[in-house]
Amino acid sequence: MCESALTEALHEECGVFGIYDKTGETDMVSAVYSALYALQHRGQESCGMALNVDGVLSGYRDLGLVSEVFTKRVLEDLPHDAKMATGHVRYATAGQRSRSNAQPMVLHHCKGAMAICHNGNLVNAPKLRRKLEMSGSIFHGTSDTEVIGYLLTQNRLLTPNIEMAVSRTMDDIEGAYSLVIMTHTKLIAARDPNGFRPLCIGELPDGAGYAFASESCALDAVGARFVRDVRPGEIVIADHAGLRSIDTHCNTAPHTICVFEYIYFARPDSVIEGTCVHEARLQAGRFLAQEHPVEADVVIGAPDSGLDAALGYAQESGIPYGIGFIKNKYVGRTFIQGNQKQRENSVRIKLNAIESTVKGKRVVLVDDSIVRGTTSARTIRLLREAGAKEVHYRISAPPFIHPCYFGTDIPDEKDLIATGHTVEEINRLVGSDTLGYLSVEHVKQLAIHSHCDFCTGCFTGQYPVTPPAETMDIVYDKPLSVSNPQKKL
Amino acid sequence: MCESALTEALHEECGVFGIYDKTGETDMVSAVYSALYALQHRGQESCGMALNVDGVLSGYRDLGLVSEVFTKRVLEDLPHDAKMATGHVRYATAGQRSRSNAQPMVLHHCKGAMAICHNGNLVNAPKLRRKLEMSGSIFHGTSDTEVIGYLLTQNRLLTPNIEMAVSRTMDDIEGAYSLVIMTHTKLIAARDPNGFRPLCIGELPDGAGYAFASESCALDAVGARFVRDVRPGEIVIADHAGLRSIDTHCNTAPHTICVFEYIYFARPDSVIEGTCVHEARLQAGRFLAQEHPVEADVVIGAPDSGLDAALGYAQESGIPYGIGFIKNKYVGRTFIQGNQKQRENSVRIKLNAIESTVKGKRVVLVDDSIVRGTTSARTIRLLREAGAKEVHYRISAPPFIHPCYFGTDIPDEKDLIATGHTVEEINRLVGSDTLGYLSVEHVKQLAIHSHCDFCTGCFTGQYPVTPPAETMDIVYDKPLSVSNPQKKL
Amino acid sequence: MCESALTEALHEECGVFGIYDKTGETDMVSAVYSALYALQHRGQESCGMALNVDGVLSGYRDLGLVSEVFTKRVLEDLPHDAKMATGHVRYATAGQRSRSNAQPMVLHHCKGAMAICHNGNLVNAPKLRRKLEMSGSIFHGTSDTEVIGYLLTQNRLLTPNIEMAVSRTMDDIEGAYSLVIMTHTKLIAARDPNGFRPLCIGELPDGAGYAFASESCALDAVGARFVRDVRPGEIVIADHAGLRSIDTHCNTAPHTICVFEYIYFARPDSVIEGTCVHEARLQAGRFLAQEHPVEADVVIGAPDSGLDAALGYAQESGIPYGIGFIKNKYVGRTFIQGNQKQRENSVRIKLNAIESTVKGKRVVLVDDSIVRGTTSARTIRLLREAGAKEVHYRISAPPFIHPCYFGTDIPDEKDLIATGHTVEEINRLVGSDTLGYLSVEHVKQLAIHSHCDFCTGCFTGQYPVTPPAETMDIVYDKPLSVSNPQKKL
Amino acid sequence: MCESALTEALHEECGVFGIYDKTGETDMVSAVYSALYALQHRGQESCGMALNVDGVLSGYRDLGLVSEVFTKRVLEDLPHDAKMATGHVRYATAGQRSRSNAQPMVLHHCKGAMAICHNGNLVNAPKLRRKLEMSGSIFHGTSDTEVIGYLLTQNRLLTPNIEMAVSRTMDDIEGAYSLVIMTHTKLIAARDPNGFRPLCIGELPDGAGYAFASESCALDAVGARFVRDVRPGEIVIADHAGLRSIDTHCNTAPHTICVFEYIYFARPDSVIEGTCVHEARLQAGRFLAQEHPVEADVVIGAPDSGLDAALGYAQESGIPYGIGFIKNKYVGRTFIQGNQKQRENSVRIKLNAIESTVKGKRVVLVDDSIVRGTTSARTIRLLREAGAKEVHYRISAPPFIHPCYFGTDIPDEKDLIATGHTVEEINRLVGSDTLGYLSVEHVKQLAIHSHCDFCTGCFTGQYPVTPPAETMDIVYDKPLSVSNPQKKL
Repeated sequence: MCESALTEALHEECGVFGIYDKTGETDMVSAVYSALYALQHRGQESCGMALNVDGVLSGYRDLGLVSEVFTKRVLEDLPHDAKMATGHVRYATAGQRSRSNAQPMVLHHCKGAMAICHNGNLVNAPKLRRKLEMSGSIFHGTSDTEVIGYLLTQNRLLTPNIEMAVSRTMDDIEGAYSLVIMTHTKLIAARDPNGFRPLCIGELPDGAGYAFASESCALDAVGARFVRDVRPGEIVIADHAGLRSIDTHCNTAPHTICVFEYIYFARPDSVIEGTCVHEARLQAGRFLAQEHPVEADVVIGAPDSGLDAALGYAQESGIPYGIGFIKNKYVGRTFIQGNQKQRENSVRIKLNAIESTVKGKRVVLVDDSIVRGTTSARTIRLLREAGAKEVHYRISAPPFIHPCYFGTDIPDEKDLIATGHTVEEINRLVGSDTLGYLSVEHVKQLAIHSHCDFCTGCFTGQYPVTPPAETMDIVYDKPLSVSNPQKKL
Repeated sequence: MCESALTEALHEECGVFGIYDKTGETDMVSAVYSALYALQHRGQESCGMALNVDGVLSGYRDLGLVSEVFTKRVLEDLPHDAKMATGHVRYATAGQRSRSNAQPMVLHHCKGAMAICHNGNLVNAPKLRRKLEMSGSIFHGTSDTEVIGYLLTQNRLLTPNIEMAVSRTMDDIEGAYSLVIMTHTKLIAARDPNGFRPLCIGELPDGAGYAFASESCALDAVGARFVRDVRPGEIVIADHAGLRSIDTHCNTAPHTICVFEYIYFARPDSVIEGTCVHEARLQAGRFLAQEHPVEADVVIGAPDSGLDAALGYAQESGIPYGIGFIKNKYVGRTFIQGNQKQRENSVRIKLNAIESTVKGKRVVLVDDSIVRGTTSARTIRLLREAGAKEVHYRISAPPFIHPCYFGTDIPDEKDLIATGHTVEEINRLVGSDTLGYLSVEHVKQLAIHSHCDFCTGCFTGQYPVTPPAETMDIVYDKPLSVSNPQKKL
Repeated sequence: MCESALTEALHEECGVFGIYDKTGETDMVSAVYSALYALQHRGQESCGMALNVDGVLSGYRDLGLVSEVFTKRVLEDLPHDAKMATGHVRYATAGQRSRSNAQPMVLHHCKGAMAICHNGNLVNAPKLRRKLEMSGSIFHGTSDTEVIGYLLTQNRLLTPNIEMAVSRTMDDIEGAYSLVIMTHTKLIAARDPNGFRPLCIGELPDGAGYAFASESCALDAVGARFVRDVRPGEIVIADHAGLRSIDTHCNTAPHTICVFEYIYFARPDSVIEGTCVHEARLQAGRFLAQEHPVEADVVIGAPDSGLDAALGYAQESGIPYGIGFIKNKYVGRTFIQGNQKQRENSVRIKLNAIESTVKGKRVVLVDDSIVRGTTSARTIRLLREAGAKEVHYRISAPPFIHPCYFGTDIPDEKDLIATGHTVEEINRLVGSDTLGYLSVEHVKQLAIHSHCDFCTGCFTGQYPVTPPAETMDIVYDKPLSVSNPQKKL
Repeated sequence: MCESALTEALHEECGVFGIYDKTGETDMVSAVYSALYALQHRGQESCGMALNVDGVLSGYRDLGLVSEVFTKRVLEDLPHDAKMATGHVRYATAGQRSRSNAQPMVLHHCKGAMAICHNGNLVNAPKLRRKLEMSGSIFHGTSDTEVIGYLLTQNRLLTPNIEMAVSRTMDDIEGAYSLVIMTHTKLIAARDPNGFRPLCIGELPDGAGYAFASESCALDAVGARFVRDVRPGEIVIADHAGLRSIDTHCNTAPHTICVFEYIYFARPDSVIEGTCVHEARLQAGRFLAQEHPVEADVVIGAPDSGLDAALGYAQESGIPYGIGFIKNKYVGRTFIQGNQKQRENSVRIKLNAIESTVKGKRVVLVDDSIVRGTTSARTIRLLREAGAKEVHYRISAPPFIHPCYFGTDIPDEKDLIATGHTVEEINRLVGSDTLGYLSVEHVKQLAIHSHCDFCTGCFTGQYPVTPPAETMDIVYDKPLSVSNPQKKL
């Protein structure tokens, strides 16, 4: 789950899903709807689905949460006789908040139509885009997905089938991508050779068909059995003939999944590369207790994302686990006016400390990250006001201080408290008695059942793939550039 | 005004608008908003505007009426420091009701960005599209405008400036088009050599800039002075250097404006090719009185679009003009349940006859068209129930029995009462005592101050440009086709 | 129809409706819905309906237009097996805009439940309310209707049936009231002895039942045959036994219907006291032509409410009738920003002059009223800018300069241009060449088929019933008063 | 927190709040808004606030959650210069879902205006209402609060001040009530002599004023310091003179607070009668472990309301505490279609088991109640499917099998699984291996710091106050009754 007490949250860029039922017994609209709900934590800006009815592709997508976009009326109006479908949830930064970037992107080309769902970030997208533009291509939005769409289309003209076009396209693109592509007869999953973003395969009951999803929790949501992860570099095709795999690009790069999937993004009930996310977070708490032990009376988690690690810390340290906060589940958007004092109190609308747990106690507070620090400070103050004698703040990840080029939206460096301050300074700024971060060494050992490496670039600045010299933003934000993006549309 | 008592209305496909104020004193958001309101009768499905702030193009468009899409909040969020802007209202048939077809279409290409507004219909769009697809182009929607966008982009690569690209593109495309194109420095209007659809030029007060609009009523709405119509085949460029014209394509075809603009589509206060639309309709009524005289006590119009011609009929015949109907101005979407009788009464929610005008009288009822005939029958029944002794039905246009390939959405032939019935049969079916249509000869003389010919293809089946052998629908509706359109997105 | 080009419109306070079908064949929800649509012009602030299913009363009401309050979903959720129902539309001044004043008011008392619909204004409401409060009554809102509810309830305890309670209540209340009351078995209409507000009786097809309505257009909307007006002072009861009348209060006061019903409020297709409203307005135009003749080329009406009188003026004067304005039927709420010039142009979003009608002409412009004068000035300016040579402004009513105590919401005297200015001054302020108002003498002769007198208090200050010394506002607005109204609820 | 995994939840009827700041420094709108958010769990059907600006009372209330009713726009439109205010959240059964029952109820009477907020249920309301009706009173809704309003008003006529009227009214009414009443100068809290429902007093910072609230979490939300509970039978008055108390009705009945407040309704962070609710729930878990020990590997709670007791069970038993479920925080209203299988899977949209916690384990599942049993069965099935070897189901309350007459909405007996089945049968029906309920004896010892008795009527059928022979429902549901409630309004 990606939201902690922190309102200054990190953001994953997307969740993808695809499903094919050759028997036609699964209602595809309901299936994609359920899966998108399960993946909602991976993107809250926009969502959409594309449906394949006898080879005809249609779609619906809009800005908003699944519950906002797929109203009863919209669901009823969609065709319910599809046998194949894809879905997508998306997060994007404010400047790119745009309906024209919503996915699945449905494209028409000379060999038919195609729906594309993409999670990740290409490092060579600006270069590819410029090249395409020079040959007369036009772009409606700013997302990498449109670049991928062109490449797939052009490669499709040169290859006998779509899977070959996907393979050729993978020769061209660099960076992080987990793709689900639907044509009029095939459903295809593809994952970049580093396997930055998760992607897994499920089987429908009675072998009726298959599903692809960013996380296994979406397979659970549609009643599909988890089969295995898509391998880094693998292309998996589901169609009437069953499931088959192309492994040309496998083992061409080290397997370096984003470690933040375990720490922060993925749902605790998802299993990624063999390790349950909840288990990895328990482990993070245990490591934290080893690295940063302290004498205390109770261990509590910052709701909701610190709870798992807090329980791990309690298990390892022997200090009792407690429930320290109550989170108001009815809180929507709030508009507090009044004076400064009132606005500060208003934090308690969302979160309140439980006095009987913390009063007069030495408290270990476990959280998954500190971004700007303001929310941390406020949370710690709640504990002090509820009577906590000491607050020992433990973070189940290292400080992140470097940008991510592979699909995570990390705030500007200037907004990151860890960029400009030592741990000791942060400890003072947020008001804790002691502060401890998990080490990079331990973070690489969280996924206890997994046999892969990790991208820890946001902690170390060392990336498995060379970051780009320019980003799309750079291309489009130069005021004198002839090429300017639409800001809203 | 395009809606009559008829609910089975004809539909114009679009209205276009562009404005440039070099002084920056005009609030472009408000100007486009006002203009789109004035053009709303030309398209109620979707609308949008694109704004140019220092060369950066942004836009907003959505399904819905101007009042629904441009809420207070949306208006406030749009940038108010643009010096150039375009706007568009669109109608489309149900199957193509799609956000991705909404305009202005903002495109990014290697020379920058471009916003395109289009009114009309290309006869060779399917052919052009197929050719583009064969060279790797991808399409997000089904509208002709995306085809035009590709051609402009590709021609732009081969030409020194955008106006040359427009000119080259006009060599490629055939059919009806009134275009307004905005680049980062220029606002361009272009009209097909036949001048099927109207397009005119206005000047802002004190020579501050220029505006282009489908109808002069939109110039009035922004306080611009009407200068002249864009000539058929002409390209007009407005930029910091003023206004200039390219006439390469002028006089390459006969000037054949769609006669339905006068009869039906355009607003009565608009002046097209020198003739005020209201005046043309008065004239239609006068001709009707000459062609189909009758002894009667009162002449009334079917609200709202029959009123002008009714007054003309009264003037010519000497029979007093009366107000025969009251139209409920509060009626929105209505959901009448209950039995058959109740649903029939429910017509009176929208329209009621005024008894004191028609009771015991011989009534001439003037309308602008009969489509299916059911609304006509219902309207005539209202008069009978209010006590009319006789009802003489006069239509200010000939029967339309042929499809339009130039931008008008005419119902399927099977839904047109005039296709399968004689005038005498229609008279019996709608329940009038006598029925008279305006002749094709007279319809060509309505625009009394205009020096052009008219396209009367929907009446005669003879078109100024050869209709296409295939339409986009044909291309996309074949179930076995590999190329399938998205139905909704 | 109550809205003219004037945005500073007068406001009627309410429309009432009731229907009873002993056969149960009429869908009551649809019937009331249709009737409220037909009466919408009498009140746009709130609306509601109450339904009687086997003696159990339920209701739904809210702020908003009929189309906004009665959405598809609300309509479906309402019970469709009622045999009796009432409905109400309401206007109220801003300060009293309140859901708790919406009607029908459904009350429970010891003899059962009751739904009350009221149009009018009691002159002794403050006195009655104070008396009720002194005996322990509590009030939820500020409307007269709650006072009527208490009196009906208390009189019901002292009388054998509801009709006797209505009769007794009519002994207590003074002023203007047209009431429709529904109990578990009866539908009752009652009208004050002066008959200030209209109220009429209709019969359902095949004698299946009856309907009561403020205006006959609502009877048309439900397919009921107009029977006659409810007589001033009459109580009419519809139940399983048929229709019966109590005339105890008839002829106890002169019949003085509000003349503004003809001039302004009622729909042209309604017949009130034997005269069609459209006919009365034609007559107003004819009288105007007699009183204020002028040499001119064309007579036009200010849309929509000046059209009927303009036609009358043209008929009497022999000057041709013309269509001078086009009104934009798509205009909703508009939010024009920009500079002063742009906001002025924005008037043209709503209304534009037709040049070919007025250019170079001497124009007679007929309107139904001048309130503040600003809209009049703007309308006349539109004509000048379209080239009118002269504008002769004719108003189909006398200047109103006195408050109304009988159910019309007239702006504060300070906002009425006629209060502080002579006709000559107004002529100059609005920019017309000449200005003429209809005389009070003629206004009393408009309803050419009616045999009643008129209340012309707003023109003359002479009222048929003594106005109150205090109003509810006075009671409730004193800041030191112990009794304070809720402003919103 | 009142919602468990159970969708068949119990419902508290209301939460009340009042605040007075003599300095005027607190923004009353924001304060009530924050407090209602904190009390939202006590009622989700409707909410409202009333504001007192210089003695003038105004209010706003509607159906919906706080976030739905108090939009940004509504908040801005409310007056922000009040010094006194009240607020209310309400739950009601479907049949009575009615805007006219929403609170605060603002009433006008001869001594001024009054806003009433009520939590509880009067046992003699039907009798009182009938008596009031017989003397001519009218009722707009069906809630007890309108009865209280009449009694207060009538007693106010006979007494020198409002507090005496409250005291006299308390002589008349029987049952459960926690009231907050606002007049033009006073804010009054009153609690029934049994103290069925909680009500507490807070003090604003720097002694600026006071607040009353159903739960202390609402005091926290506005930054008020908890002072003490209102005593059963006490009347507390806050005005410019400070705080004073009338204890005439104190100690006239045993203090028997509803035990479900601790088990189910109240928020864990609230302190009621000296005991923190979280602490009481931990204690319930500890007692459960004593009463129903079992050999197991992990203890988990049903989210969210079983978590506290699960931790208590773990502490007492020594079995490790685990996190067994992940709850989807994005789930709104869902519309799952498709076949039976798909609808069953859709449970996983809301809740999913964490495999790594339960696989191969003997699991103790702690929940706070079993209502119909279907949700319990589904939750247990999730655990089985995730690999749990055994599931031992522990309920932190006794089976409830009797109706509540004091403000809790318990489902019909026929819908309660415990009514017709033994514990052994329920164990089989829900699919657990063993099932244990907390005993009534232990439930009375949960509030470990409290010195009061408890109402356990829903478990034992023995009530501290004699239940009524009839309920309002009985009075109003007889089809032949002359008195029928409005169903919707």
